[in-house]
This record gives sequence, C-alpha cells and structure tokens, in this order.
Amino acid sequence: MSGNTIGSLFRVTTWGESHGAGIGVVVDGCPAGLNMTREEIQKALDRRKPGHLLSETSRREEDQVEILSGVFENKTTGTPISLLIRNRDQESRAYDKLKELYRPGHGDYTYSMKYGIRDHRGGGRASGRETAARVAAGAVAAKIIGRFGMDVIAYTIMLGGIFSDQGKNINVSHEIVDATPLKCPDAEASLLMEKKLAAMREDGDTVGGIVEIVVRGCPTGLGEPVFDKLDADLAKALMGIGTVKGVEIGAGFDAAGKTGSENNDILTPEGYLTNHAGGILAGISNGNDILIRVACKPIPSIAKLQRCLDESGRAVEYAISGRHDVCVIPRIIPVCEAMVGIVLADHLLRIRAARI
Amino acid sequence: MSGNTIGSLFRVTTWGESHGAGIGVVVDGCPAGLNMTREEIQKALDRRKPGHLLSETSRREEDQVEILSGVFENKTTGTPISLLIRNRDQESRAYDKLKELYRPGHGDYTYSMKYGIRDHRGGGRASGRETAARVAAGAVAAKIIGRFGMDVIAYTIMLGGIFSDQGKNINVSHEIVDATPLKCPDAEASLLMEKKLAAMREDGDTVGGIVEIVVRGCPTGLGEPVFDKLDADLAKALMGIGTVKGVEIGAGFDAAGKTGSENNDILTPEGYLTNHAGGILAGISNGNDILIRVACKPIPSIAKLQRCLDESGRAVEYAISGRHDVCVIPRIIPVCEAMVGIVLADHLLRIRAARI
Amino acid sequence: MSGNTIGSLFRVTTWGESHGAGIGVVVDGCPAGLNMTREEIQKALDRRKPGHLLSETSRREEDQVEILSGVFENKTTGTPISLLIRNRDQESRAYDKLKELYRPGHGDYTYSMKYGIRDHRGGGRASGRETAARVAAGAVAAKIIGRFGMDVIAYTIMLGGIFSDQGKNINVSHEIVDATPLKCPDAEASLLMEKKLAAMREDGDTVGGIVEIVVRGCPTGLGEPVFDKLDADLAKALMGIGTVKGVEIGAGFDAAGKTGSENNDILTPEGYLTNHAGGILAGISNGNDILIRVACKPIPSIAKLQRCLDESGRAVEYAISGRHDVCVIPRIIPVCEAMVGIVLADHLLRIRAARI
Amino acid sequence: MSGNTIGSLFRVTTWGESHGAGIGVVVDGCPAGLNMTREEIQKALDRRKPGHLLSETSRREEDQVEILSGVFENKTTGTPISLLIRNRDQESRAYDKLKELYRPGHGDYTYSMKYGIRDHRGGGRASGRETAARVAAGAVAAKIIGRFGMDVIAYTIMLGGIFSDQGKNINVSHEIVDATPLKCPDAEASLLMEKKLAAMREDGDTVGGIVEIVVRGCPTGLGEPVFDKLDADLAKALMGIGTVKGVEIGAGFDAAGKTGSENNDILTPEGYLTNHAGGILAGISNGNDILIRVACKPIPSIAKLQRCLDESGRAVEYAISGRHDVCVIPRIIPVCEAMVGIVLADHLLRIRAARI
Repeated sequence: MSGNTIGSLFRVTTWGESHGAGIGVVVDGCPAGLNMTREEIQKALDRRKPGHLLSETSRREEDQVEILSGVFENKTTGTPISLLIRNRDQESRAYDKLKELYRPGHGDYTYSMKYGIRDHRGGGRASGRETAARVAAGAVAAKIIGRFGMDVIAYTIMLGGIFSDQGKNINVSHEIVDATPLKCPDAEASLLMEKKLAAMREDGDTVGGIVEIVVRGCPTGLGEPVFDKLDADLAKALMGIGTVKGVEIGAGFDAAGKTGSENNDILTPEGYLTNHAGGILAGISNGNDILIRVACKPIPSIAKLQRCLDESGRAVEYAISGRHDVCVIPRIIPVCEAMVGIVLADHLLRIRAARI
Repeated sequence: MSGNTIGSLFRVTTWGESHGAGIGVVVDGCPAGLNMTREEIQKALDRRKPGHLLSETSRREEDQVEILSGVFENKTTGTPISLLIRNRDQESRAYDKLKELYRPGHGDYTYSMKYGIRDHRGGGRASGRETAARVAAGAVAAKIIGRFGMDVIAYTIMLGGIFSDQGKNINVSHEIVDATPLKCPDAEASLLMEKKLAAMREDGDTVGGIVEIVVRGCPTGLGEPVFDKLDADLAKALMGIGTVKGVEIGAGFDAAGKTGSENNDILTPEGYLTNHAGGILAGISNGNDILIRVACKPIPSIAKLQRCLDESGRAVEYAISGRHDVCVIPRIIPVCEAMVGIVLADHLLRIRAARI
Repeated sequence: MSGNTIGSLFRVTTWGESHGAGIGVVVDGCPAGLNMTREEIQKALDRRKPGHLLSETSRREEDQVEILSGVFENKTTGTPISLLIRNRDQESRAYDKLKELYRPGHGDYTYSMKYGIRDHRGGGRASGRETAARVAAGAVAAKIIGRFGMDVIAYTIMLGGIFSDQGKNINVSHEIVDATPLKCPDAEASLLMEKKLAAMREDGDTVGGIVEIVVRGCPTGLGEPVFDKLDADLAKALMGIGTVKGVEIGAGFDAAGKTGSENNDILTPEGYLTNHAGGILAGISNGNDILIRVACKPIPSIAKLQRCLDESGRAVEYAISGRHDVCVIPRIIPVCEAMVGIVLADHLLRIRAARI
Repeated sequence: MSGNTIGSLFRVTTWGESHGAGIGVVVDGCPAGLNMTREEIQKALDRRKPGHLLSETSRREEDQVEILSGVFENKTTGTPISLLIRNRDQESRAYDKLKELYRPGHGDYTYSMKYGIRDHRGGGRASGRETAARVAAGAVAAKIIGRFGMDVIAYTIMLGGIFSDQGKNINVSHEIVDATPLKCPDAEASLLMEKKLAAMREDGDTVGGIVEIVVRGCPTGLGEPVFDKLDADLAKALMGIGTVKGVEIGAGFDAAGKTGSENNDILTPEGYLTNHAGGILAGISNGNDILIRVACKPIPSIAKLQRCLDESGRAVEYAISGRHDVCVIPRIIPVCEAMVGIVLADHLLRIRAARI
C-alpha cells in the first residue's frame, strides 16, 4: 500500500501532478451493470469549478474528463474504470520563482525531505488539483450508493468565524445547497460570509471554515469492526483531504462534555429520539442519518508578505502574486461528498461478506 | 481486509470477545533484532488497569500476557508476535438478562443487524476489553519508535466539562502524567475532575472527556500521500477506538476560525515559530511535535433507568446493576498512546521505501 | 502485508514456531452464521497426523486445537476466529547441535541472512509444523465452501518415481483416499510406493512426489482478473507450501506441447467435452472441476552424511539422528486441501461484489 | 483488492480493454530518485511487438506510451507513475460476429457468467493486449532491480514440442536471446521451431511452449514467509498471465522424482554446488540464480472450424478469419520478464523492513 489508493473492495487510486500532463483515477472494484456516462462524471467535476463572484483562481479549470476503460455501451463491466483529466494550463514558468522556496503551510518542505525531490510546479502532487480525481471517482461511488437509496449532502456551516444557524440545515437538499454561492443553506449567514470573504480579499488574507456532511438513507450494518469501523474509515478519508484538520461524528467534541444520560440515543419502536451518535454505533451504521463535520484550515497561500526558508536553509520573504482563492469553501464541498461516497460504496460491498 | 487488522507493514490483528476464552493480538511485520520481554508488554497492560479510588469496574482485570511466538531469547525474530491474554473472569450469567436487550449507546443493535447473531456477554467483540490487545501491540510498537527517538504521551485535558490549563501541559512527561489519578498534568483541574467524577457516581451517570496526545522526536518524512497521510492514518486509528467521536490535529477546529496569516507556521533557520499544523504538513511529518486531540463520549452504561428495545422490537426499561466506570478516562489514555504508536511504527517502516 | 496473511476477504494469518509455546491462526472475515465446533477443526488436524506404519516423526504430535474467539454457542459470529495449538513437546535440546549449522535444503541460511537472527529449534518458523495452523484454518474454509456445494480432494499420483494410474482416480472420494496409507487411490501403485518408502528408509534417504487436487462443485465465476485470477491465487497458495516446487492447472505443462485444436475444451449444450483448462478460463472458474497438480520435493533432512556450512562459514558434515519422515506425502495432502479451500472461500466472498 | 493490482509496496494497477480508448497502468510505490525517460519504457514495449516473419497479428501494434505523472525532469518523484497507451486501431466491427459467441479457450463465457456483461470486442479486458501495460510497468521495475545489480532474462526452451538443448542456455544474455526470432538461444532448435510454426500456420492451428526465466544477481533475503514467499509471489505473478498453465521453480516437477540426497543443494565456502532449489529456500532467495519455467498453452483462436455455444446456449460453429499469431511465444517473453521484475522490485522494497 503505497498511499495513493483508498478502499478495500471499491478501490480508488489517484495519480497526477498539478502541472504535469494530467490527473486521473483508476476505480477498481466497481460492480458490473451500473449505468454510467461521461456526462454524469463531468457534471460532478463541474460542481467543483470555482464560483464566479467570490472566489477565483488564477487559471480557469475547464476540466474535461475522459472514460478510458471499464464502461461499455454506457454500462460498467466490472473491470477497472480509468478516468483522465488533461491539464490544460501547464504554464509552469509562473512557479519558477517558487522553485527554491519552502512555502509556509504547504508540502514543499515535507515532500523535499521525504523524497529528496519534488515537482515544485503548483504544489505538484500536493496540489488541491488532485482532488478533481477524487470527485470523478466520487461520481462513480455515487452511482453505487444511489442504487441503495443513499444520498450524501455537504454544506457550509461556518466560514471565517461566521456560523450558520444549524437549525436551518435540517431540510437541506442538493438544490438548496447548490443554489447558494457558498453552499450554505442559511441565507442570512451566507450573506455575512460573502462579506467576510470580500473583506479578506481586500486584506490579502484567507479564512477557513467548517463543513457538515449528512448521509441519508444509509442502511443498518455498514462498517467493519474493530479497525475498519465506518467512522474510522470516514475519518481517514476526510482527514486525508489536504485542508482538513479535524473530523467529528455526530455530537463530536460536544459529546465529550455531556453525561451518559444526555448523550445516549434512545431507540424506540418509532425510531431514535436523538442522533448524538451521528448514525454510527460501535463502528456500524445504525440506520440513522450519518452526521459528520470537518474543520478546514485557511488556505496558506496569502497575498501578504510572509517569511519562509529556501532550499539552502536561508530565511527569505515571499508573497504570492496573481489571484488566488480566499477560502477553500465552497470548492471543498464536492470533495467531501466524494470521499464520503467512496467510503460508503466500499462498505456497501464489504457488508455482503458479513453473513453466510 | 476484514476489519480486525490495522497497518500496512507493521500489521496488528486483534481478536477476542469480552467473555470468551481470551483476547489477543498478532503483530506481523515487527522487524527482527529488537529486545523484547514479556515484562515490558505486561507493564504496558498494567497501566490500563482501573485506578483504585475514582473509577472501578465490576471485575478486577488482572491481565497476564503471554508471548506465544515471534520472540526468541528475548529478541524479535521478524516472525509474527502472537500475544495472548486469558479472560480470567468469564462469569457470564450476569449478562444473561441483557441477552435480549439492545442497550443504548452500545453495539448490541448494530452487531445484531449486521451479523444476525452476537455474543451478548459483556458486549462481546465490541467490549472495551478488546483494547487490551491494542495496548499489548502498542508495547511492541513503542519499542520500534523508541529506537528512533520518538515518544508518545497522552493526557487528559478535559473531563466532565472541566478543562485543564493547557499552558501547564507543555512540559508533560510520562512521570508527571502517571503520577496523577486522572492522568491530567494540571493538578488544580485534576482535583475538580475528581470531584466531578464522585458527583456523577452519586448521580448514577457518566461523563466524557478530551485527551491530548503529543509525539516528540518524530523525524521529518513520515506519511504517505495522498490517502495514507500521517494525519489520515492517525485519525482512523483513533476514531476506531469505540469511545472516540472526534479527532483533531494541531489547531484542529480552531484552525477553521483563523486567517491564513494567523494559522501559517513560519519556518525559520531556528525552527518553526508556531505549531498550528500539529507537526504534519501535506500529510507528512514536518519535524515539529505531533499534536492530536480526541473527544471521548460518556460511557453509555449508566445506573439510571433508560428506555431501549429488546430483540423483538418492544420498548423496555433497564438500568445497569453493579459498579461500572464513570468515565473512560483515564483508562483510554494508554489505548490512545498505543494506537498512535502503532501508526508511527508502520510509517517508520514505510518511509524506508520512499527513496531508491 | 508482512507475509503471514493470505486472502483478501477471508483472511488467514498464521503464527508460531516449531518449538515455541504454540502455533495458531487468526481467521478473519469468516461470515457469521456458520455452525462450527472444536471437534470439526480437531478432526481436520487429526488427518494431518503421521501414519503409523510407513512414516514416523521423532515426536508424536497430538495436537489439540482450542477455539479462543469468534464462535459463540457453536455458531460463527463474524468476528475473528482465533485458534491455538499448544506445542506439547518443546524439548529443544535435541536441536542444540544444529544451532550453528545451515542445513541443506532448509531455511537456516536464508532466515539468518534476512533477519540476522533465527529460532533454530526444529526449523523455527520455517518448520512444516506451521502447516498445522493452515489445516485448522482450512477446516473453517471447508465449512464455507461446503455450504456452496464445493468439495476439495487431494491424493497422491506419484511418490518416489512411481506413478499411479490416473485413470483410476476419476472417482476418487475422501473415503477412498483416506482408506489408503499413502492417500493414493490406485491400490497397485500404492503398494509399490510403500515398498519404495521402506527401501528409502533403509537407505537413509527421502523421496518426493506429486499430489493432484480436484475441486468438485465449483460454481462459475470465481476469480478476479487480471492479477487475482483464481489459478494465480491457487498457484500462490500452493507454491507457498514449503515443499512445493511446481504447480500446474489442468493439462499444465502438457498443454505446452499440444495444438490449439487439441487443447481447446469444447463447450456443448451438454457441457464441456474435455477439461484441459482445469476448470479455469481467463482466471475465472468455468463450472468444470478444478484440477491442480503440485510437485513436492524430497524432504531435505536425510540420515546420510551431508556437507554444509556453519554460521562462521566453515564447511562441516552432518547427518540427522533420530527418526524422520521419509516423504512429505501423505502428510502434505490435508495441507494442499486446506490451502485450496482457503483460496476458494476467499473468492466465494469476493464474487459477491462483482455485480450491482 | 479488486484483482487489477499486484504488489504490496511496489504496486502495479493495470486497466483497459482491447478495443476501448486505451490501456494503461499506474505504478505506485516507485521510489523517488530514479532516472526515467519515456524512451526507456517505449523500448520495453517495442520488444513486445510481433516479429516480422513468423508471427503476425491482424493489427499492427505501434504502441506509443505516454508518461502522465510521477516523473519530473526525468526523475521519479515518489508519486504514482501513470502510463497511457492509446488504442490506435479501435476498429471493432470485425468482432461483431463474435459478439454472441462463447469462443473455446477464451474468457467469453466466464466473464459473461461472472459480470452479466462483457466487452466482447477483441476479448475486452481478457485480451492479451492488457499485457502491454504490464510490460510498461516492468520497465519501471527493471530500473529498480537494475540498481541492485539484478537482471531478468527469459527465453524459449520448448515450442510446439521441440525442446532446446538447455545446456546451451547457460550463458544466455539479452543480446543472444533478442538476436533470435523466437528468442531461443539454441540456434539449431530454433530453426526447427520456425519450421514447426510455418507448418502449423499452414494447418490453421496453433502451438504452445515453455519459457525459462533466470534472474541473475539476486541478493540473499528476498521473500516474506510464510505466504508471501518469493516463489509463491512469482508463481502468482506468472500464473496470472492468461496463457500460463504451469509454473515451476528450480528442478520443479523433476524434484518430485529425486531423492533428498540428489536434490539437496550443498553450500560450500565456494558457493552452492547445484541449484535444484532455483535460488529460493524456505521462500527466501539464497543468493543463487533464480530459475523458473512456465508452460504456455496454445493460442485458442485457430483457423480451423470449432464448435462452441452462443449466448442463448445453442451449439454453433466458428472459425477465426484474418491472420492471427500461431504461438504466444516469443511475444510472451517480455511479459514474463516484466512480471518477474515487478515481484522482485516489490520484495526489494519489502526487505527493508525486515530488520530494525
């Protein structure tokens, strides 16, 4: 296991660097017989595109995905699905001046120390661009879990210190979420977040945020104790997104402050009275909605002048030029959904081996 | 991968039920040539024993570990290390009345739904007792990472809503932590926590808490992008502990509220000025201390009367009898250390393949 | 993957040395709901015992297996099944004089070079004794494949250069095979083999043989292209038995000398006319019987004087004392059956993920 | 593990169908710092091209490989190496008439039964074309093992019943082997083989053959007991080639007919006197050359009329049209070398974890 594969039966292997020939993914273990078109995968990728008003990137990513294998006459065949996204804009000279810098908050230093070599262009393998491959794989996973009635929705609940009123999230739908520029279903909070982003852009700084993910329709029984618990695999998949620094399930850190009598979810003949467990008990889904929150750090590339080291160990100063995203939200939303979908698809296949 | 194994090169497979013949672990991939004695592993297990004053269990666990293989003349041989802990107290009649109950907060319901059968005695496989096997494996891992100058220390920073002053944690050592009954290095907070526990015991209720884990001496370069990032594997290993509902690295959820200029750790020729990243950048250790916090939910078994379902779907009421732990802290501390050590040992071996 | 585990969903991890505390196996991924008793596993182990007349070992192996976990009230629960076989006869002084020798045909030299240390007693981990753990796991696998109507039978077709008439093997059954001392269903050949063994014993030498394995009732569809083909996994499982130096499927090496028109198995509405493919096409079972043959080398421990090196690199001479087996057959027969069963059980579970 | 990946630390995942958009491979776990150019990989692919005189395929495969990731400025970076080979000739109408046939000796029937759907064009995933991706990955592996002084050479020792004089193979080199049209270093036998092929072509039939593989310069210590033995992994990798029906190591099936005193390789201060073990003892390389032989079945596509079933279960007759290869040899030679190289590269990385 060399790090670029996730999953056990539904296996996703991504490859590619920010400014190489392209990025892509091989999805192995997708069951045969699913309807699958290029357009469905493309649509998922399009959701990852930067929005127009509030967040921009220096290059326009018009990612076009190509299905290279595993689909025949719009049906999956059970063989590996290889997806390719060519890098359109491989202009790498813009990064030449960063070649010898270890930028703060980026993997420049750690990649160099680990491998003795790195592709410095645009962050190379550590670039957020790699997540496009995850989103493409997530579109395959979504077909599987969709067949079993499951749906994954992620949305913004905090951005730059502004919290949405979570009571307003209860009835979130993809339509509601996608209709808002910051994928925050609380319109009031959303407006404040937009203002915050504008202010930060002025200031040459960036902000982080918190994303909540809800899984509806999850059947009981997903998750393999004791190490491959459903929550453990979800935590790994989400913490493995470059920007994520914290993951919590259900009540999460709040649960630590509760008493047992407060925190226990009482199961009645009519269903659970609460969902502090976030839909997972002893590592196995319990039929309730699965609830997850992830903390995203602010983007480390800021327009302000920062100190850092260069490859020879000398202190230097640098500031990024050009326009960059001010916040990883809302672009991280489809990535979160993809990773959760990938884990669920894997466990849906694994559960088939649980009983004789 | 059937769920009971963690690790890639350093592989830990636990087995065993709470009231079966015993529990144990097979550690495969431990390098040859390490000094290893039964006493070292026993000592790690002893740290997991319940304390005397504040927390008690209905049975006294005097776990004795036996090394069945993999060690010859007190040296590891490179073959699998099999460790056995017999269950001394297999009195299972006490659990007969729970046989048909799906207790709140436990895996009774989910195991039954998944497998169609469960060993109801003491929680069976889902019992916290399984973590003794993890602690035993952690003692092996500790030998490996110790050889590379690494040390893992976990301690309590919140219990029942009472926070320790984290400024006082900076110089934590195993001695300081082990000297306190609740493994909280802030003596003042510790006293308040003890009072809280006593009150909860009176009340027949339980409380949760937050554990912080610091890894010192971690070399730069551990972690395999993009999915097997060091923080991703740590999150999985810790979220896979039954009681854990949240994991954060470095600034964690607080990072989500910071700006980029606040959150970036500046690397100078003298070292990092801050450690908001928690020692991990782009999934690879950066030479700083690794900082992790985990949220532990309150123990679901409470003396108060609770509603739940029985196997036939009828609503019933139940309350545990006998004496049970009021808080998973401090017993979870060595488990956290073990899981972190297991992940680090695995990545220490994996890093050897990074360069030609 | 550290070498001591085989299988993907049905995972078998063995541990233990010849003269350590014991040997054992953890079977993870066995589906819940199978009937399982200690006696069934014991019975499989008993078949591995040395026969009385023709082959003997210096120690009487009265292996008693204990189920430590994973079975509750004689049913599998879906949790790992841990099986323990204590080493009764740990008298290791007999091996002291071999301590510094690299015996020909054994792993003494290679283990020392690889690990820098070895448990020299009775071959340590490289001892044939380890296969008892495989046989125990095979008893679990046999329950699974039996539920799907599959049966694995292995038998001797060559021993010491004497070939059985394979035409007589067509109707082999466990009863027929087990009724013969050398597990050779051709009674005439069997007698000649017995004489050969007696002669070799007189001569202080050993002989090898060929085992054929037939799987009946295998459903169509087992095997995962392109690397985890059913024949590829069978080859690995069987070549991983210490004594095996060759594996062939169906016509095997004979197929290399045939023409396409001779070798192709014609499928008619009434079934296949031939079975040169050995029941596997493009790595997937085709519904025909699976046919495998393995070549077993002669046991390297012989009573004749041999030259070898000691640990300091000096040439020395040695001859084993005491009584040893003259041929690995028939004791290897249950091991072959076990390994084939383990592979089939794994693929039976894996096939469940092939279609949506 | 879904079948399309081989290796543990050096992981090779192939994808692609015969008449889809292309085929390719992701090589994950290649150490950083190796020199690597597109031309080196292309050169390996070119060796797989059909020869001019004796064997032809209906389409000219002018495979051009593209490195999509993992190599920066002609150096490996430690990130996944993605290699793409576009299918030039996707003319699939020629296969339309085979659409509903289950051809003898092909995977048509088994793929249909397993997946319920198949890409019938040119064999789809089961096509020999997939091996081009293996050869590309093998070129990466060759760089790794080459750095450690290892070399893998495969050559023909039997074709259509004509055996080469193996005494003449002792000094085989890539130059000698590549200089002959059938990659048989015995010039006399080679001529007879060519005649045999010509005769078979006239006859509309095909033949099989035996390939021998020798690994020179293999260090002692490769191989992970007890299941991931070096010979076990080699057997799996080679048996996983579609055409292979048998694998033997060293003396192989001949060893079964020898006595212990004949078969044991005596190690002297000057080295081994013989190499019946084929360079592997107890699953670990012993410093001797590794010797392997594989049996290749005749190509099932023959010009003669054959009976088979169609998808509705009716008996039909069919004969291939166009020109096809008469023998998989010599095109399988580079595939064998690639698979052996892949296994060795994996074990070279794994051995680094053997000792502390």
